[in-house]
Order: sequence, then structure tokens, then C-alpha cells
Amino acid sequence: MKALVYNGPGSPSWETIPDPTIEDPTDVIVRVDTTTICGTDLHILKGDVPSVKPGTVLGHEAVGTVAEVGSGVTSLVPGDRVIVSCITSCGSCQYCRRPMPSHCQAFGSTGWVLGNSINGTQAEYVRLPYGQNSTYKLPEGMTDSQALFLSDIFPTGFEMGVRYGRVTPGDIVAVVGVGPVGLAAVATAGLYGASKVIAVGRTRPRIDKALEMGASHGVSTKDPDWFETVMNLTDGLGVDVVIEAVGVPETLEQAFRLVRPGGHVANAGVHGTSFSLPIHDLWIQNITFTTGLVDTVTIPILIDLIKAGRIHPEVMGTHEFSMEDMMGAYDVFSNASKHNCLKTVITNS
Amino acid sequence: MKALVYNGPGSPSWETIPDPTIEDPTDVIVRVDTTTICGTDLHILKGDVPSVKPGTVLGHEAVGTVAEVGSGVTSLVPGDRVIVSCITSCGSCQYCRRPMPSHCQAFGSTGWVLGNSINGTQAEYVRLPYGQNSTYKLPEGMTDSQALFLSDIFPTGFEMGVRYGRVTPGDIVAVVGVGPVGLAAVATAGLYGASKVIAVGRTRPRIDKALEMGASHGVSTKDPDWFETVMNLTDGLGVDVVIEAVGVPETLEQAFRLVRPGGHVANAGVHGTSFSLPIHDLWIQNITFTTGLVDTVTIPILIDLIKAGRIHPEVMGTHEFSMEDMMGAYDVFSNASKHNCLKTVITNS
Amino acid sequence: MKALVYNGPGSPSWETIPDPTIEDPTDVIVRVDTTTICGTDLHILKGDVPSVKPGTVLGHEAVGTVAEVGSGVTSLVPGDRVIVSCITSCGSCQYCRRPMPSHCQAFGSTGWVLGNSINGTQAEYVRLPYGQNSTYKLPEGMTDSQALFLSDIFPTGFEMGVRYGRVTPGDIVAVVGVGPVGLAAVATAGLYGASKVIAVGRTRPRIDKALEMGASHGVSTKDPDWFETVMNLTDGLGVDVVIEAVGVPETLEQAFRLVRPGGHVANAGVHGTSFSLPIHDLWIQNITFTTGLVDTVTIPILIDLIKAGRIHPEVMGTHEFSMEDMMGAYDVFSNASKHNCLKTVITNS
Amino acid sequence: MKALVYNGPGSPSWETIPDPTIEDPTDVIVRVDTTTICGTDLHILKGDVPSVKPGTVLGHEAVGTVAEVGSGVTSLVPGDRVIVSCITSCGSCQYCRRPMPSHCQAFGSTGWVLGNSINGTQAEYVRLPYGQNSTYKLPEGMTDSQALFLSDIFPTGFEMGVRYGRVTPGDIVAVVGVGPVGLAAVATAGLYGASKVIAVGRTRPRIDKALEMGASHGVSTKDPDWFETVMNLTDGLGVDVVIEAVGVPETLEQAFRLVRPGGHVANAGVHGTSFSLPIHDLWIQNITFTTGLVDTVTIPILIDLIKAGRIHPEVMGTHEFSMEDMMGAYDVFSNASKHNCLKTVITNS
Repeated sequence: MKALVYNGPGSPSWETIPDPTIEDPTDVIVRVDTTTICGTDLHILKGDVPSVKPGTVLGHEAVGTVAEVGSGVTSLVPGDRVIVSCITSCGSCQYCRRPMPSHCQAFGSTGWVLGNSINGTQAEYVRLPYGQNSTYKLPEGMTDSQALFLSDIFPTGFEMGVRYGRVTPGDIVAVVGVGPVGLAAVATAGLYGASKVIAVGRTRPRIDKALEMGASHGVSTKDPDWFETVMNLTDGLGVDVVIEAVGVPETLEQAFRLVRPGGHVANAGVHGTSFSLPIHDLWIQNITFTTGLVDTVTIPILIDLIKAGRIHPEVMGTHEFSMEDMMGAYDVFSNASKHNCLKTVITNS
Repeated sequence: MKALVYNGPGSPSWETIPDPTIEDPTDVIVRVDTTTICGTDLHILKGDVPSVKPGTVLGHEAVGTVAEVGSGVTSLVPGDRVIVSCITSCGSCQYCRRPMPSHCQAFGSTGWVLGNSINGTQAEYVRLPYGQNSTYKLPEGMTDSQALFLSDIFPTGFEMGVRYGRVTPGDIVAVVGVGPVGLAAVATAGLYGASKVIAVGRTRPRIDKALEMGASHGVSTKDPDWFETVMNLTDGLGVDVVIEAVGVPETLEQAFRLVRPGGHVANAGVHGTSFSLPIHDLWIQNITFTTGLVDTVTIPILIDLIKAGRIHPEVMGTHEFSMEDMMGAYDVFSNASKHNCLKTVITNS
Repeated sequence: MKALVYNGPGSPSWETIPDPTIEDPTDVIVRVDTTTICGTDLHILKGDVPSVKPGTVLGHEAVGTVAEVGSGVTSLVPGDRVIVSCITSCGSCQYCRRPMPSHCQAFGSTGWVLGNSINGTQAEYVRLPYGQNSTYKLPEGMTDSQALFLSDIFPTGFEMGVRYGRVTPGDIVAVVGVGPVGLAAVATAGLYGASKVIAVGRTRPRIDKALEMGASHGVSTKDPDWFETVMNLTDGLGVDVVIEAVGVPETLEQAFRLVRPGGHVANAGVHGTSFSLPIHDLWIQNITFTTGLVDTVTIPILIDLIKAGRIHPEVMGTHEFSMEDMMGAYDVFSNASKHNCLKTVITNS
Repeated sequence: MKALVYNGPGSPSWETIPDPTIEDPTDVIVRVDTTTICGTDLHILKGDVPSVKPGTVLGHEAVGTVAEVGSGVTSLVPGDRVIVSCITSCGSCQYCRRPMPSHCQAFGSTGWVLGNSINGTQAEYVRLPYGQNSTYKLPEGMTDSQALFLSDIFPTGFEMGVRYGRVTPGDIVAVVGVGPVGLAAVATAGLYGASKVIAVGRTRPRIDKALEMGASHGVSTKDPDWFETVMNLTDGLGVDVVIEAVGVPETLEQAFRLVRPGGHVANAGVHGTSFSLPIHDLWIQNITFTTGLVDTVTIPILIDLIKAGRIHPEVMGTHEFSMEDMMGAYDVFSNASKHNCLKTVITNS
């Protein structure tokens, strides 16, 4: 089959490799129908993620069709259409039973193994360990593009942002960063009754996208008065829940400035350096700060909400490619701003 | 002043009585600008509520203007526009501190005293004990009709129905009964992300009102297949959260039939007789059943949500009266179905 | 092997039947080292549980040693000592993922299948479907008698009583019924900081056992003043959390009489008839009433607490038998009061 | 009356000042029967707390007797014995209603005003604004020394440590720092069922005190293997809940090293500098980090638990003084290690 292989920093290739086969009785082989590229994949290509070894197929998001199941698989049969979770869950370790499969112990300390420590989804086929626990069946009538962003991005914004941030009805929510994860948080904050959802970004097209996806207000940090603008949208005390969705010290600092006493800062960004936490100011502020990798346990909820017409993840898919043009998709996504690209939809047709 | 006085079963009158005066340092006198009639008032007039003695002014809902404050009142001044909570809260007993002022201990076992054990709001003026803790300031720009149903009906549907029912995103919610409380539950179920809100009623105009106010589906129990119709809207397992908003055994029985294993039944109706609970079926079903009088602690949240345009309580006000025509308002509300009346808006102009 | 077979109402036998074998790849065969008898088994023998067909091996509690595993089992190997959960969990249905395996969908509507719809644990060997998800490994050094009551009784008292009852620090808890489930609730109420644990029973030996297992007060309902005695232990308002652990209308009625406004009634008893719920009194009382079959998800927690010396489930084992004397064990347990028997410990030596 | 007056950095005096009088209708004058000194008072004396102006009476902890009440006070009368909360609560602002009186808006942004922006409790009398909401009645039979540490220290350890840390049954808890706040956390962690409570300190006497007050294990960071020692007490994954009770970067860093994925770090220490948060490691760890000033809303719970014999705050009072020897008490508490002093008990006899 063809697959996007990481050959070391700066060196991906779309090449032919052997088809995956069942190795363990709980394995499931899925034919990848649609996949996409994540910002994390770009980090890997830069060499920033040492757990990814050369020779690995990248990708941890996909919608596909079950091709083959191991002898221990009881609830899936070939032909089933499934969402592949970015998190692989053994289903029986203490973290999976909690359920917090982001820290499934089967593969060490993380449930993120696809396109990381084992081959991923940017390929014609993918082997999924513990496939039964690591996929969700697609309901009839749901399209691949509706479901594709439920592999990772939408649950990340919803779980790590909205739920960890404990948004409750009436809350004023600010989402700092309007990339895919931030937009997923924007799109789902209303599910817990946010009264205002303030998208805090830099560039206009993405802030406009946030307004389209459910933000009540959009603010650009290029505007020197942006902070006062946000504070004026509160009663002067600050924001109830701030969701950080960028992953750099500057935006995390903004989050802690914006939050009110008794409020929440939910980190959903991937950080590469330490952060100077103003604990001398915060110790008295009754702040809850959360971090985390997504569990994807809300995929069934998000499926129901798509069916109910309350969320529309497919609007994130701005650019479509066929799988043969995987390198073209990478090229566009690597220069997302230039192409005004949010997420790619890459189809195995 | 003029006031609606209960003179015993079947005998209300709109008559002149002395103006209320400050009796305790925490009292607040409010000029009633707008009031309304509750189904409970009709029960009182029938003689069903023994705690109400002849000579009592009825009414526990109002928007008004502070006229005078006791010496212990620090956060209200004459001229302040306020929502009068149907619950009087001393602010310092164990229930008020919890906060569960529905069971404030200052007046015995209940925080509902207005129009019950003391004079109420269907009058030109009302004395509010612990007035500071029992009112909520109106934000500028909010109209009386937007705020009026926050005294009781909207918090009741939201707190006793949606919050006690623990609606969470993706849930299928059924509201049995589409009177004012049921409609308030319908209108607020989406604030916790319900994927479907099924209004279960009897007559068409109210079911249609439910659809207008946020229900995704309306079902009439006059339809012999109504139960199957609801079950078909679930995955066959039943409804996640059922909110009972009528108060008779038949509807409570419907609620327990509709709920799925692991689901919630939230009682928001006022019941007059016991109920044959099928505990032999339910003991194994992991059901949570809740009851309760409203606390009105969500009034500030609901104010924010009105400002944000997420709820529109004013649509419940179907019939307007001037206060001088109080008896006319009672006449219409007592025959609500005939007049297709939901709630009255009675103005002291 | 030898097994206790239900041959229809009133007719159990200890007889030889074929050894169980692996039927599905997720099966695990466990050699039963220690088992016990549940009150439910007596109900089955009376013919009260129609889902149990003649020919079925009874029993849903055991500690044992893995003898053989199916091809799909990855985390257990022969020789592992395990607690057998009374609940069989497929691990991938919506209820198991929640996690609420009491309603696992793999076998219909309940996760209780052992000794019910399939052969159970009162035998030398038992086949466990989804064995990996339905057992918990025993830590080294823990004895069978310490662990045996974690199959069902202890999690039932803890989950259905203490946790569903939402005991919080300082609460006054009353446990109505001091059989095994009630005693497990008594023994675990302190884990959420109960300030008083009032055991409400009938006969002295069991009330004394409750005092030994952690109750702060014991009250016999044979005492005509029992109700006032309990109320005097509160501040007059009633009990915060009442746990019903008998399963008859009389005790459930006692529970609803004892609970204070804003309190919880957690049903842990198995009921055979309907109950006349005083909803005309309760609708205004802000009561939460819960029911349910145990999920056993707290077994790992209870293991940790045994290791920490905070709970001592083994004190429930009052009578020991060898497995060959299974009929003798049934005889004693069927006349538990006469023998002052709480739970039997039946060993396969 | 006599009072301990702050005259600027390094300069306290025990001097005669005018008695306090009722200034507002919600004021309560309390005769201070017993008071104590907090570490914060020492910080104030160093000049570290700019909100405290010269001329201010210090102290925010006391048990006393109501001497006089303002006209708006309805639930207290002269002669009532009360615990003075370190937090002054107006009872009607949005934070007090939440209830989160630590951020009561009546005096700006904090509910800590006693011995800060207004005169405090290290005096013969103290004026308490909103006295009704800022005190808790002492039950009969409870001594001053049992109740004294409920003004601040015990609720701080319990609320900011144990409750914000969301300790649940079975959890392994580490408390870093075994001063008064850390010891209060140690003493209350069992109220939520901790299976192990590991006291992490430096010096032996305090670690021993922790073991006396409920710690299951004591570890000194002077031991070079201390970190491994703690990790070996877990299953190698780390601690479920770490409570930081010192307030310097080193101990906060220890807390983040000790916590397991999915765990909680609850800050209860007062910090003076920023902290280099390893967010590049933590973003993926599903950590919840909390900070905060105490609300003291758990005082009634703690009173019940003292009555039940589950906590014994009085063991913290290691040194007794009469109020006339206030300067002597300061001298000892300022050199606490030398005197092996934990908390002083200063009596107005």
C-alpha cells in the first residue's frame, strides 16, 4: 500500500510499504477512507517529537472501513464504517477503566500511539491495536467529512477546553487561539450554555471563522486595546473560563491575565517551553488550571450532536485532496495561513 | 393601596388595604411594577393550601422598584429596579448558606412565604423580609416582561428540571407537560447541550408553543402510539432525562416508563396525592429521581442568558392586563385553555 | 467438576457437570478458590427470578485463579489470582464505556449474567465471558477472605449506598437494614467523612455487628421510640443521607420519613413490590432518590483501602465451609438468623 | 481596650486604643476570648503586605462572645459565642452568593479584611462588618481551643488542599509542607477516604506531628532518596493529589514532580515570587492545578466533625499565652522552630 512515511527530520515521503496485518487478536485493520493532517504532524516532521522513529507512517485521524478483525474482536465486522480515535485504548488498565485512555498503560504512558510509536492513518490501511475500544461506529447517513474531525480536533477542543474548563450556563468564555482546536472549543462552548464566547486571535480570516462557528465576539491581539475590549465584555472582573489553544508562553500569559477570581484556565495547546507562572498573584485568586491530552470519550456525544444539527465539524475542512496527492496536502497545510487553510480532507477514492 | 386578597376558598377580592411598612431592619418595600398569577394561586383559591390564611395578599412573582429600605439594608436603595424572588432567603441559616434557600429556616421550613404565610406581590406594594437577599437587581435595558418570569417559572423549569435532571451534552430530554414550568424546562434544556428535547403534552397549541420555545419534537399523549413515538426517537433504550412538569400520578408514571437505565427523572410538578412507584422494576435500573422547590439561585445566570439572547422568557406572556383589572386577569388565567393563555402580565401603570 | 445446580424452585443439587471450556476468544476460565452465597441465590431457589433457567449453576461472587484464557485475552495469564466481579462487562458498549457496566448491552439489558443467564461461580470452575474486563487482579499478600466480598456486597453498599447517596464530610447517614449490604454501607460511609452513621435494624446481633463495623449509633425499630431516637441524633431536621438496604415497602417508607429536606435516599435493597411514594409531601422537599445495580467499578479503590487498613471486609465472613459441603453452607445461610450467620466463606481446597 | 497595633515594618506594639463601636447596621462587636497569630501576621510585620496600613490592629482568627449588634442583625444576640471567620462576607454580592466569599466584593476584591484593611482580632474587642454572615455560632460544650483553628487554618487545609485537590476514596495524597496549613490538610484528607497520606517535610518534630495528626507516612526532603521513597509508596505512577502548603518555588516544583498523570496539585501556600511551570511536560499530563484563598464555608462541617470526634484541631495549639503577654506570644511564634511551636493560643482572661 501507499503511505506517508517519516524518514527523519524534514523528510517525509509518499511511498509503497507492505500492507499491515493482524498481529494481535485484538487488532483491527481499517481501510482508511478519509484522513487529515494535524499540526502535530508538522512538529514531527521538524524532528520535535523524539518518540517518532524514522520509518513510521504518520497520522492519527481517520474515518475508515473495517477490513479485517483479530480473533478477539467481537463487536466489529468487516464493512463497518468507523471513526478512528487518535487515542488507542486497551480498555482494561486503570486509566482506561477510569475512563482516561489518554494515559492507557498498554503502550507505556500515553494512549497516543498512532503515527507516533506505531504506524498511523496517513496510508491506505492502518492496523489498530485494541481496535474495538479505539474506534467508534459511524451512524448511517453520516458522511466522512462530518465525522473526520471527531478523531482528534473536536474532542480536544470540547474535552480539554470546554469540559476541563467546566463551562456552565451563563459563563463568559474566551478562547485564546483560533486554529482548529480553538475553533472546536468555540463551536462547543455553547453546549454548556456559555453566554458569551470571545474568540481571541491574531488574523482576520480565522477570527471570522470563529464568529461563523459560534463565537459571539472576536478580538484581535494586534489591536493594542484588545485586553480592555475583552474586559469590557465582562463585568470588569474578567472571564469565567479561558481556553488556551495555541501553546506558547505569550498566549498562556494572556489567559491568566483574562481570568477572573474563581475562574478556570483550560490549556489545550501543545507547549514546547516552560512558563513563568505568576503564582505570587494567582495563589489568592481561586483559579483552576487544567492541562491534558484528549481522551476522545466524548465522540459518541459529538456524534449525537452532529445528528441533532447542533455542531457542524465539517466546516473545518477547507481544502480537499485525494490520497495520491498526500504531498500536496502537506504542502498546503504547512503553509496554512498563506492558503487560508484550516484542515485538509484527504480522500482514498 | 389596592391588593388581591384571599378571603377564604373561592373568594378573592381586589380591595384597598393599608400600605406595607418596614417592620424589620432587613425589610425592603418594593413598588410592584409588574406581576403575574401562578397555578399555585389557583390552588390557594380552591382552599388546597392550608398555610394561606384568609386576609392574605396573594402572589409571589414580580418586577418592581425599591421604595424604602430598612436600616440593615446595605446594597439596595430606593429607585433600584429588582426581580422579586418567589423565595425569601435570610442568607445566614444553614440552608441559605448551602445555598438552598428553598428551605430557609427563618420562617419555618420553607423559603416560599410571599403570598403564603405573609402578604404577596399582587398588590401595589409589597414588603420583602430579608429584601437584599431575596431580590436581584435588573440590568439596565432589560424590560419588565423579559424579567418577570425569572421570579419563579423560569428558574423552576431550569433548576428543578434541567439542573436537577443533570442534563448533559448529547442527552435526549423529554419534558412531560407543557404548561409554564414545562416550557421553561424546554427553553433551557439546550443550555446543557441536549441533542433532542421532546415535548410531551396533550393539546396542540401548547405543544406548538414548546416547538417554538426550543423543543426539537412534540408528541401528544392523545396519540395512542405516543410512547413508541418517543422511544423511536431514542436508540430504543429510552430517554436520558425525563422532566415531569404536571403533578399527577399519570404523568409521573409516564416519566418512569420513558426513562432509560442510568437515566434521570426530575420532578417539577406539584403533586396532591401519593404515587405507586414501581420500585420492583426500578431498583435495578440505576435511576436518579429528584424533587424540589426552586431556589432561584440561577436568576443571575438567567439574566445573563437573556442579555446574550439565548433565552426569551417574555414569549410566555400571552395576555396583558393593567393591575386595576386584576380580577379580569384571574378570570382569564383560571380558564387558561379556553383563552389559550400561558401567563398573564399584569402592570401597575 | 462439581457445581451447585438450580433444578427449578426449591431444588438445588451439588452435582457433577462438564468442566467449562473457552467458547469465545474473550473468555477466561477461572478455578474458583473461594465463593459465597448471596441473598439473591435464595430468591432464585424460591423461583422468584424467572431469568434463571433450570440447569444453571448459581453464584456470582468468587475469588479464583485463572486457569485458561481465550485468544483475545491480553492482560491475564493462567495463574493470576483474581476477584470475579458479579457484573460481566464487554468493555465496549455505551454503558461499559460510561462506565456503567451494570447495564452492559452484550447480554441484553444487564451485566449480571453469572448464576443468572449463564453458569455461575458456585462450582470448581467458571467460564467468564469478557473475562479481562470482568475480573480484578488480587495484589500480592491479600487473602481470599479479604477479597471475597468485593465481588458484590462491598461495592454494592459503597456504590449504591454511599456514593449514589452522595455522602459528604459532616453528613449524618442512616443505614436502614443491617444485612450484608447495609453493613457494607456502614463500613464505607466514613470514607466520605460521615459524622454519624446510624445503623437502623431489628435484631441485636446485627446492630452490634454494625457498631463493630463503623456505625456510631445503633437503633432497633422494635423500640417504639426509634424514630424520635434517630431524629434526636440530628438537629431535628432529619438525616442527610438514608441508605435503604432491605427491599420492602416498610423500610423504604422509613427512609423517606427520616430524610431531611435537601437530603438523599439511596436504595440498595432488592424490591419485589411497588411502593406508595408520598410524592405529595416530597415534591417540595428537594430530595434525591437513587436506585441501582452495582457496577463494581470501585473494586480497585476498595482493594487499596483494604491494603491501607481502612476497611476490613473479611469480618463479614462468619461461617466457613469447604466446597464439598456446599449444601451445608446453603442450609446455614438459608437460616441465617438462627445461626447468626452473615456471610459464608466456601473454600475449594 | 488593648490591641496589637502594626506601626509599620518591624514595629508592632501592644497598646491602648479606643474600643470599637457599631458603625453600620450589619456590624457586630465581639469580645475576643481567644485569638492566635498566623504566619501572614509575620509577613505583615516585615512590610510584605502593602494593603496593611500603619495603625491597623492585626489578627484574623478568634473565638469570642457577641457584645453588641447593629440594628440590621437578626440572628445574633449579645452573649452568643462565635467563631470569627477570617473571611468577611457581605452575603449578597455575586461571589458570596456563589458561595465564594473569599472574593466578596463589598471591600474590593477580597473577603480578607480583618487585620488587613480594617482592625483585626488581636485585641480585646473587634468590630465585624456583616457580622452575621462572617461568624459561626459555637455549639454548647465546644471549647475555645477546639474551635479557634476553624477561623482560618483548618478550613484552609481542608478547602484549599483536600477539597480543591478533589481527594476521593482510595487516593494517595502527599502534603508538601507540614506547618499549620499542611497539618490541617493531613488531618482532613481521610475525610474523603485517602488510602495513604504522605507528609513531606523537612524537620523531624513536624513530620512526627503529621504522623500524630493522621499521616500514614512521613518523608523528609533532607533524605536524598525522598523522591523515590514517595514514588515507591505509589504504584510507580506518582501521587493522586499533591497539596502544596509552603509557598516557595522549590516545594511547588516538588509537587509537580510527584503528581501522576490525571492527578491534582492543590496550592495552599502563600507565594511571593513567580514559578517556572514545566508546561512543556505538563500539557499532556491531564493535571488539575488549583489555587485559592479559603472561603471558610466548611466551618459548620468541621464543627460537626469535631463533635463526632473525627478531627481534633486543638492539638495544633502548642503554646498558651494570656492576652497581656501578646508580645511574648509574637516572640515565640516568630521563632517557631526554636520553640517547637505550631500555633499559639492567646486568651483574654
